[in-house]
Amino acid sequence: MNLEPTIEADFISDEPFHLASGEILSSVKQHYAIYGELNADQSNAVLVFHALSGSARIADWWEGIIGAGKALDTNKNAFICINYIGSCYGSTGAGTVNPKTGKIYGTEFPLITVSDILQGQKKVLEHLGIKKLKAAIGSSVGGMCALQFPVDFSDSVEKCIVIGATELSAMGLALNHLQREALRIEKDVGLARQIAMISYKSPELLNRRFGRNPNRNGENPRRDFEHRFDIAGYLDYQGEIFKNRFDKETFKIISKAMDLFELSDSEIQTIKAKIYLVGISTDWLFPAADVKRLTERLIKNGINAEYIDFKSPDGHDAFLSDTMQMAEILQKIQTEF
Amino acid sequence: MNLEPTIEADFISDEPFHLASGEILSSVKQHYAIYGELNADQSNAVLVFHALSGSARIADWWEGIIGAGKALDTNKNAFICINYIGSCYGSTGAGTVNPKTGKIYGTEFPLITVSDILQGQKKVLEHLGIKKLKAAIGSSVGGMCALQFPVDFSDSVEKCIVIGATELSAMGLALNHLQREALRIEKDVGLARQIAMISYKSPELLNRRFGRNPNRNGENPRRDFEHRFDIAGYLDYQGEIFKNRFDKETFKIISKAMDLFELSDSEIQTIKAKIYLVGISTDWLFPAADVKRLTERLIKNGINAEYIDFKSPDGHDAFLSDTMQMAEILQKIQTEF
Repeated sequence: MNLEPTIEADFISDEPFHLASGEILSSVKQHYAIYGELNADQSNAVLVFHALSGSARIADWWEGIIGAGKALDTNKNAFICINYIGSCYGSTGAGTVNPKTGKIYGTEFPLITVSDILQGQKKVLEHLGIKKLKAAIGSSVGGMCALQFPVDFSDSVEKCIVIGATELSAMGLALNHLQREALRIEKDVGLARQIAMISYKSPELLNRRFGRNPNRNGENPRRDFEHRFDIAGYLDYQGEIFKNRFDKETFKIISKAMDLFELSDSEIQTIKAKIYLVGISTDWLFPAADVKRLTERLIKNGINAEYIDFKSPDGHDAFLSDTMQMAEILQKIQTEF
Repeated sequence: MNLEPTIEADFISDEPFHLASGEILSSVKQHYAIYGELNADQSNAVLVFHALSGSARIADWWEGIIGAGKALDTNKNAFICINYIGSCYGSTGAGTVNPKTGKIYGTEFPLITVSDILQGQKKVLEHLGIKKLKAAIGSSVGGMCALQFPVDFSDSVEKCIVIGATELSAMGLALNHLQREALRIEKDVGLARQIAMISYKSPELLNRRFGRNPNRNGENPRRDFEHRFDIAGYLDYQGEIFKNRFDKETFKIISKAMDLFELSDSEIQTIKAKIYLVGISTDWLFPAADVKRLTERLIKNGINAEYIDFKSPDGHDAFLSDTMQMAEILQKIQTEF
């Protein structure tokens, strides 16, 4: 049983919500969770951003990282996570009824950006009385959020921890495009998830775990086209279980938001927070070399930025799978707070 | 206008053709092309193997590599290329009428292996009076053929040049699986080709050529979900043009043959030919490190093998795109013949 949030609630606003695209959402619900207790002056608030398929319930995907005495120590700080606008875990998204039409948005849900997500989350923080975050932490698209936050709200955060995230390279854009093509063609999220999975794992991890073994259920790949290798059985299974927990439109919306994330030098120059950038050594979706280059770019623009090496054989997913090392890195950074 | 073959013909055999799977083809046609002239004792025959989507017409995909005075010098040698059994460029495949049923094979075409392909090609060589090849050359799945040939016919070839090929790693198997999943779901070869394309190109090549530019036709990716980045426009285009020249079943059949290629130590020990293995520095489908490891394995098994580094920023496709360097490497190896 994973740790339960101290608070889990919805923040609903009926103010018109202006998106970067020019579209307006007439009502927005944001689902959030808080682990630990906010102190009297709200100075111990840490905002955590989830990844593409994550929810506000941090402990559901960062088990072992968050809790009393853990790297994200709920005895000391209050950790807030807010499901993204456009996501299917409780916030306004494609599955929501559009008040303007009375029908579910579906494919009509507008394009959102990382900044749109943050505009929404800032309203939740204000509602909670939080003026300044002690830290903002995120991995993957969550890392993009953790880096965009001090640009969009430069006085509202002290430290940012950006894990396995940069602007997407051409290869990253290609991988996202293939996933959205798969979503376009297939009725469900199965193949898109399978394509995503290979980008989350390193070649060495796949070799070690699956190699050229036949599928563990006893199939013989030499027999016919249907019989698979173990890696194929694994990918099919991952595609299958994802269908039960994730929505097609959410996948498309957040994938597109990832595509669009990029920062100009003048935007970078507005950052006041200290930025920690964590590169995962075997990540080929967000290569460590790209994270390092981004760190250098921040420093060149006068930002207090530091690169941290996350040595793991697991690939991009190391932030989820390599819990021990992830915890160690987060703990080490926090001793500076 | 590409160089035309000296001879382009079909070899048809009505002998029952026994496949590794146990299935039997009752009649087999193999389409082949010869560039240059076989000498009187047929001692200048070089067998060239095409890649997944290639045909017997070498000059159509290796323009600049083959011709009078070129790296594959048609003044000196006769270069033979035979379309694979199971392919759609003139040989018996899924588009052929099954003599047993009177209907087109379609999805009923049996699974074939690299050894099945070579059994067929050996019959063509015998028909042409060629007892021993001066060399066998191939890239990608063609490289698998060039390495399997001296195992299956150890007295029939002097030198083998294996370019960008090894057993597929788990990541390679994963990529092939995703392509076949795309073929299963989609009516055509579009998405499968797009997935294949990213495995053929290096991240650095994609960055250099496309970066994060908007699609060159003027689309604005920030506008809506349909507007693309340049890399996405490129992949869509590659998927589209492939539909006009390639068959879905052929894709599935040859992809599966690639999956199944692997050699045991005892098979390796039967090799008598000198083996040159060329690793492409930025290839992530067949990483150079894997090609190097395979070379060491051959040497350990007593084979006369040599590793050659093909430094190119282009990724796996360098054997097609980096013509100058490819020609140089082939020329250098051939000075030893």
